[in-house]
Amino acid sequence: MPAVEPLDRDFARRIRASFAQQGIMGLIGARLGAVEPGRCVIELPWRADLTQQDGFFHAGVVTTIADSAAGYAAFTLMPAAARVLTVEFKMNLMAPARGPLLIARGEVRKAGRTLTVAQAAVESMDEGGTSTEVALLQATLICLLPRSGA
Amino acid sequence: MPAVEPLDRDFARRIRASFAQQGIMGLIGARLGAVEPGRCVIELPWRADLTQQDGFFHAGVVTTIADSAAGYAAFTLMPAAARVLTVEFKMNLMAPARGPLLIARGEVRKAGRTLTVAQAAVESMDEGGTSTEVALLQATLICLLPRSGA
Amino acid sequence: MPAVEPLDRDFARRIRASFAQQGIMGLIGARLGAVEPGRCVIELPWRADLTQQDGFFHAGVVTTIADSAAGYAAFTLMPAAARVLTVEFKMNLMAPARGPLLIARGEVRKAGRTLTVAQAAVESMDEGGTSTEVALLQATLICLLPRSGA
Amino acid sequence: MPAVEPLDRDFARRIRASFAQQGIMGLIGARLGAVEPGRCVIELPWRADLTQQDGFFHAGVVTTIADSAAGYAAFTLMPAAARVLTVEFKMNLMAPARGPLLIARGEVRKAGRTLTVAQAAVESMDEGGTSTEVALLQATLICLLPRSGA
Repeated sequence: MPAVEPLDRDFARRIRASFAQQGIMGLIGARLGAVEPGRCVIELPWRADLTQQDGFFHAGVVTTIADSAAGYAAFTLMPAAARVLTVEFKMNLMAPARGPLLIARGEVRKAGRTLTVAQAAVESMDEGGTSTEVALLQATLICLLPRSGA
Repeated sequence: MPAVEPLDRDFARRIRASFAQQGIMGLIGARLGAVEPGRCVIELPWRADLTQQDGFFHAGVVTTIADSAAGYAAFTLMPAAARVLTVEFKMNLMAPARGPLLIARGEVRKAGRTLTVAQAAVESMDEGGTSTEVALLQATLICLLPRSGA
Repeated sequence: MPAVEPLDRDFARRIRASFAQQGIMGLIGARLGAVEPGRCVIELPWRADLTQQDGFFHAGVVTTIADSAAGYAAFTLMPAAARVLTVEFKMNLMAPARGPLLIARGEVRKAGRTLTVAQAAVESMDEGGTSTEVALLQATLICLLPRSGA
Repeated sequence: MPAVEPLDRDFARRIRASFAQQGIMGLIGARLGAVEPGRCVIELPWRADLTQQDGFFHAGVVTTIADSAAGYAAFTLMPAAARVLTVEFKMNLMAPARGPLLIARGEVRKAGRTLTVAQAAVESMDEGGTSTEVALLQATLICLLPRSGA
């Protein structure tokens, strides 16, 4: 997507505050990385209590950071008064997410007034620093604004 | 889907053992409910550390139990030696998942030798026992078998 | 979904008029079937010019009738002045769509003021009348209303 | 995706032959464009009989060329004896597909022995040559090989 000018110049602070309110991010130990107009990165170190039955990150955990990365990428371009909700997403799991580090990179593909389409790619980084793309998410987000006069 | 005969009559025990190995289920406090041929139920009580920024269940958490419900529904019909992995899924989030109780019901729509298509519906039950359908998942699962002779 | 009262009692006529305007339905030879509140059926007979390389219905053709069946199911519950557009959908192709008759059944799962979630199941009927479920679609539709005063 | 070496050096001829067999491509007037390892382009000029009720390309028609572009991108990397089938896909429709020219660009994201994940982006080109991204597809394809000895 071409570079865009955010409507709210204070978007990064707004997103860091929102991230801090997501109880699940604290529970799983996710960290907010870079936040730029139309982009957001979330990292997650492996833990035994984030796994499915084979010891890999559970698909739902991979989805949790991918969804938030895409959602916050969308949120960077929304007005200061907006709330963002995920309407739907689709996730392809392409390889086992072994870790020990997962990195989800969210990116806006189309920012509309009401609906935004964003994608996220999740890579798994091993101890030697080798990265494998393990998942691709494609999502629709909705921008909710307080009613004027309400 | 019409009733099917599972290949492994001991499927329920196999699924309870696998569920117990999913570290994430313990972390979030999910409970395995009914397990029948082609069907599986998972329940999840609300907790503050499972939320997004507005206090509802995070979409990734809703997905975590929906994905496992669909995956185990598929797993009920697979051979005893099989492993199951999620290939992909799509999730529609139709209403805020407030709880305090979420119930994910997974169901097989087409069980193939290699690929299975399953759906899961997630309902949110409020204190008064009123239920709202909050999410629909549609997933593809793959059956992995050990190589013969290996 | 529980039975719902349509906002526009003349919904069936509105949908038949819209269907007649979809150039693609005439091109491929699709027929509009039953239209009820929250439901819509579209049928499509096999033709050699609707196929992929193996002689089955092309996935895009199956999607064309599934998308319209879901979209018109949603449209039955919208106000008379509304337009409906597909925001996104997901399609699982579970078996070859051989025909010679395809039947797509669309059904609303959640009708919102702006967004509606609908599903469609596509069955393939053979010469002997045996039916096979060949595809499942899950879609988000948007209701567009003319601006008041415009 | 990094550049890959196709298993079948004659892949382009194989894909052009397969495309010629897709009856639907002739019916709608789609043209096969560039075919490279892991990539495939399909173009489609606007016609009145490819439309939905507002005169834009029908979502199913946009999907038809996007699915084939993704499928043939996957097919470029498969063995000469393989057949390719679409397992599932997800499509986001981001803007009305007005045309008069649609261009679908398919690209492989992960080529596995059995399953391949591919994406396609569809742009709409207006008379002045201005391009708008109108749709994004994310798909899973399966490689089917004849049984050895059969």
